[in-house]
Amino acid sequence: MIWQEVFGFIAGAVMTVGFVPQVWRLYKLKSAREISLPFISLYLVGSACWLSYGVLLGLPPIILWNAITLLLGIAMLYAKFKYGKS
Amino acid sequence: MIWQEVFGFIAGAVMTVGFVPQVWRLYKLKSAREISLPFISLYLVGSACWLSYGVLLGLPPIILWNAITLLLGIAMLYAKFKYGKS
Repeated sequence: MIWQEVFGFIAGAVMTVGFVPQVWRLYKLKSAREISLPFISLYLVGSACWLSYGVLLGLPPIILWNAITLLLGIAMLYAKFKYGKS
Repeated sequence: MIWQEVFGFIAGAVMTVGFVPQVWRLYKLKSAREISLPFISLYLVGSACWLSYGVLLGLPPIILWNAITLLLGIAMLYAKFKYGKS
């Protein structure tokens, strides 16, 4: 592993880990009124695209973190449908 | 420009564009209660790290889109401080 990859892993870790308190907050407040549905939808599409980009170019940090963001995006989508009206 | 870069540009476009309705929604509702401050903070740090990663490896899509996400992150941070209490 080259040092750029280490840096990429850290960058992805920080950005992905950041979504954990966000998703957790939606479930804690049982409210997802402020979260934009276009944002969640595009976030899911974007994660899937970056994942493919990472696979095509063989970039491990992009593959790993976008796989996780895809799962977090699904959790946000579920929260939006469950709590979006409150 | 190789086709992987085109794909990367599209991926970044979708993910970055997704944050526009999210930021807009916070300003429209004048409410940022559901948005997690650790999320915004880590999002900003992550954008800056990805930007550096892109610069180091010379990856144009990562450079371009993370520069924009950095600006959107700043707009979210401002909304949080302005509307976070409501």
